[in-house]
Amino acid sequence: MNSELIGGIGASLTTIAYLPQVFKIFKTKDTTAISLMMFLLMNIGVTFWLKYGIIIKQQQVLWSNLITLCLAGYIFYIKLKNVIKNKEKI
Amino acid sequence: MNSELIGGIGASLTTIAYLPQVFKIFKTKDTTAISLMMFLLMNIGVTFWLKYGIIIKQQQVLWSNLITLCLAGYIFYIKLKNVIKNKEKI
Repeated sequence: MNSELIGGIGASLTTIAYLPQVFKIFKTKDTTAISLMMFLLMNIGVTFWLKYGIIIKQQQVLWSNLITLCLAGYIFYIKLKNVIKNKEKI
Repeated sequence: MNSELIGGIGASLTTIAYLPQVFKIFKTKDTTAISLMMFLLMNIGVTFWLKYGIIIKQQQVLWSNLITLCLAGYIFYIKLKNVIKNKEKI
């Protein structure tokens, strides 16, 4: 396997990985065990990756991080809502 | 800011992000809201990224993914243990 393919599989899997977590939260609305700080840092980090993809004009970096931002952003949003409602700890 | 710095900040933040989640799980041992499938896919994906870093001889890619693998691996391990013990759903 060449390095491009290995990197591509890595990028795809680490993006797709958020999907089952999004489905689980969408179904249960429970984010008690989720760390607010993890998804805050993750979303900021992915935003930097996205900017990196735009600067170096790499479509794959751009799109995988844009999708990750939507998925990780949803998890952060639901967790934040539950914390604000005093239903959960951060 | 140059692209290398932006990518570096992105890599650092998306690695460090797992730390507060690890601390939270270490303290509470609760992973009810965590998706087993998310951390399974994430660990496989990060292993591909790690291999990519080794092939292209990029120290930063290698180390950030090695650290991520330890942190995301711990979360997966505790979740798997809780599922096997029939304490939690996947």
